Amino acid sequence: MSVQIATAKLESFKAYVRKMKQYEEAIALIYWDMRTGAPKKGIGTRSEVVGELSTEVFRMSTSDEMGEYLAFFTQPAELEQLDTISRKMVEECKKEYDRSKKIPAEKYQAYVVLTSQAESAWEDAKHNSDWASFQPYLEKIVATTQEFIELWGYEGHKYNTLLDMYEPGMTVEKLDEVFGTLREKAVPLLQRIQASPNQPDRSFLDQQFEISKQKQFSLSILKQMQYDFEAGRLDETVHPFATALNPGDVRITTRYLPNDITSALFGTIHEGGHALYEQNISDDLVGTNLCTGTSMGIHESQSRFWENVIGRSKAFWDRYYGELQTTFSPQIDQVDVDTFYKAINHIEPSLIRIEADELTYNLHIMIRYELEKGLFNGTIAVADLPAAWNAKYEEYLGVTPPNDGEGVLQDVHWSGGAFGYFPSYALGNMYAAQFTQTLRQELPAFDSLIAEGNLAPIKEWLTEKVYKHGKLLTPNEIIREVTGEELNPEYLVQYLEEKYKSVYGI
Amino acid sequence: MSVQIATAKLESFKAYVRKMKQYEEAIALIYWDMRTGAPKKGIGTRSEVVGELSTEVFRMSTSDEMGEYLAFFTQPAELEQLDTISRKMVEECKKEYDRSKKIPAEKYQAYVVLTSQAESAWEDAKHNSDWASFQPYLEKIVATTQEFIELWGYEGHKYNTLLDMYEPGMTVEKLDEVFGTLREKAVPLLQRIQASPNQPDRSFLDQQFEISKQKQFSLSILKQMQYDFEAGRLDETVHPFATALNPGDVRITTRYLPNDITSALFGTIHEGGHALYEQNISDDLVGTNLCTGTSMGIHESQSRFWENVIGRSKAFWDRYYGELQTTFSPQIDQVDVDTFYKAINHIEPSLIRIEADELTYNLHIMIRYELEKGLFNGTIAVADLPAAWNAKYEEYLGVTPPNDGEGVLQDVHWSGGAFGYFPSYALGNMYAAQFTQTLRQELPAFDSLIAEGNLAPIKEWLTEKVYKHGKLLTPNEIIREVTGEELNPEYLVQYLEEKYKSVYGI
Ligand SMILES: [Zn+2]
Ligand SMILES: [Zn+2]
Repeated sequence: MSVQIATAKLESFKAYVRKMKQYEEAIALIYWDMRTGAPKKGIGTRSEVVGELSTEVFRMSTSDEMGEYLAFFTQPAELEQLDTISRKMVEECKKEYDRSKKIPAEKYQAYVVLTSQAESAWEDAKHNSDWASFQPYLEKIVATTQEFIELWGYEGHKYNTLLDMYEPGMTVEKLDEVFGTLREKAVPLLQRIQASPNQPDRSFLDQQFEISKQKQFSLSILKQMQYDFEAGRLDETVHPFATALNPGDVRITTRYLPNDITSALFGTIHEGGHALYEQNISDDLVGTNLCTGTSMGIHESQSRFWENVIGRSKAFWDRYYGELQTTFSPQIDQVDVDTFYKAINHIEPSLIRIEADELTYNLHIMIRYELEKGLFNGTIAVADLPAAWNAKYEEYLGVTPPNDGEGVLQDVHWSGGAFGYFPSYALGNMYAAQFTQTLRQELPAFDSLIAEGNLAPIKEWLTEKVYKHGKLLTPNEIIREVTGEELNPEYLVQYLEEKYKSVYGI
Repeated sequence: MSVQIATAKLESFKAYVRKMKQYEEAIALIYWDMRTGAPKKGIGTRSEVVGELSTEVFRMSTSDEMGEYLAFFTQPAELEQLDTISRKMVEECKKEYDRSKKIPAEKYQAYVVLTSQAESAWEDAKHNSDWASFQPYLEKIVATTQEFIELWGYEGHKYNTLLDMYEPGMTVEKLDEVFGTLREKAVPLLQRIQASPNQPDRSFLDQQFEISKQKQFSLSILKQMQYDFEAGRLDETVHPFATALNPGDVRITTRYLPNDITSALFGTIHEGGHALYEQNISDDLVGTNLCTGTSMGIHESQSRFWENVIGRSKAFWDRYYGELQTTFSPQIDQVDVDTFYKAINHIEPSLIRIEADELTYNLHIMIRYELEKGLFNGTIAVADLPAAWNAKYEEYLGVTPPNDGEGVLQDVHWSGGAFGYFPSYALGNMYAAQFTQTLRQELPAFDSLIAEGNLAPIKEWLTEKVYKHGKLLTPNEIIREVTGEELNPEYLVQYLEEKYKSVYGI
């Protein structure tokens, strides 16, 4: 009898979670539509629709009904009887429930209003390079976040509880260690690269490339990557993104620039990597809260694996460069594949994170990580950020922003309170290199598969190891199970050193 | 105190209705997306999202909470204190509540399953011209509908309660009268047209028209019609439609056929007419259940006004034919505007309703009306439909379907239980002609405005008279207030006689 009750309760809990997931799918579609072409006069009313649906999802995630499910299923005797998926579903709901319940509703509401105002203020501040107008907002956001951390609780560093929101289980201790190693190797490598006499010729990239041809080539590469067009579509937006409505509908967008062939090309492959992850989550997880990538870092490892490890490799262009030449003929007929390969792997310290290359990107991230860590352990005040930012840029990258718009104000993240998010980008690079190391061992034909344009076995391997699990495994479980060890930055260091040794002849 | 309570209750009722409306907006967006390009592998999960949201809207419309609002506000003392909009909101909710509450839930559920199966069965039956395979489904649907009519109750004819769902207030008595008049005049007019020696030359329409040019011309005409592209967009689908998400977002679709210039042209104008109605509903009604067209018939009057009264008029082509010639030059350079005008107003009895011309369309509708009326007053059995259908086609149109696929099985409506819907199409034609009569009196420059391409005053007139009211006025209130009399089929008769006298020289 008790088993029957528990079974019925479990079915009812799963239906409850599925309903939340369905509402989230509706919200995700509305956002996609808003970004890809919803008429502007409808946006006001549409935003209220999003507000209503989001409120309902939040209400469900913190309702008494949810509280009762969780109280029941987290009893040790009940929890241990659950199948793996159900147990993990309960744990995820519990984590979210506890987090939300600890913040008084009116405090959270005030925070939502604050970050919404701050995002507008940030836009103006960035545009006008006017740090002073943004500083008071950021001070309030940091102060509120400090309060939230006290309410949520934390182990070790306060910043750990922020990191955990984007990369479950990640800590300051671990990041200090891996970023320390990476920085120690990356900064001298960058210096050797800059000192090299063998700088790539990039002059041929400086011409107009017809947009319809860029589109055609992007579509072709997505198909080669095994992106499933029956389970997705490619549209255009100013800021490219991927959005997973369900595994049968994972949409990506890109941006075509007439004078820059590489922007759409690598942007499309990047978003395509995010999409492959979501398209290949196991059917068992559809309709559960585990039907999504396990963390920002693991997600980014997949976009960067496809963009950089595959898309900027010599083997890839040995296979596809002819097609690129033909598509744009005669524009790059006289440029050989080696020249092209070197040009797309050009390294140069710059001010702007989102324009950074594969090597210096990590340094942009470490700067942000160290500043955020300082904000939350009390060694840096919000008012100190511009000076601290500029000093770090000089130290790590040898460049100094001419103004705060191109410096400390360049990213939207802080205005939305997204502290702890930035490390994911560099973690993605490290995870990607570590996965690649194992992949090369288990698929020794890796380079020749790429050179043959046979990318399916690579996608299959990633599906088995990473994609299909969705959120059933934690980031740390995945990296350990796949590679046999904890996150280790040496693989990224090795990858970068080998790659740039050949590109720059150092 | 009691006033304060009532005010608070009214606010809460309005918020409740607004929430239902917001869910419906999300559902409408999902349907639009499904029809315009959602990847097919995501449709299964997406359909469950629609199911969940629709269930919630239905639950809200029949909940105890709704019941309490309605019990309170329909008290005469409360109702008379409400402002016009609130009163009408209450009345609309009450109508829907009563209708839904009268059907036992399990009976309704079974009906939903039945019609869903019947729609699949109909598709196959139509494809195979296999009436026998569809008949048992239709028999069950008619029988269930009969049961529902008993539960809902009816005044006069049973069929009245079905008509009322699409055209509030419409009755068999009224339809018999107006359709009688119309048929009496339309059938002989058709015979005179067919006997005329002056048949339009349509040979020049039989060529390939480049789709990108068709698209360009469609967009240009929509702009001329005052369709607001900041509050809408034009996409392509196999079956054109208009969907109003909110007045700031009213989307239309069209279909471009390479060998038929008129399909996209008039299809776009038709859907554009539906869209003008929804784009111009008063701001006061946004977020209420009155923010939609008042009936199927009035809606269709607007699509047909723009498609036929404007779009197939001589004045319109006097203004735009040069542009059409230029767009497709030299394809119709040698065809003069008079020839073109006559060709697009060609009349010919045919088997298929959706391909019918402006005159014979009404006869297709009357046939369906008489058959539906017979089904519900017991004079026609479902089994009799194919023979009855063919006899009517012979009698009214002088054509006989070679098979049931092109006859009684051609329309989807009955498989979904949509009895009472068909008359709307012909009502639309009658309303349109009657509005036009008044419009010509109040804007005597009507023809010259069209000939000048100055369509804004016409749209403004319709906005003031029809569009802005949404569902605040009933169809009958609108036609009386605008034209000073009840629906009168003589205006359509006059319009058709005058038009075809000139086209066919009769
Ligand atoms: Zn990414
Ligand atoms: Zn229509």
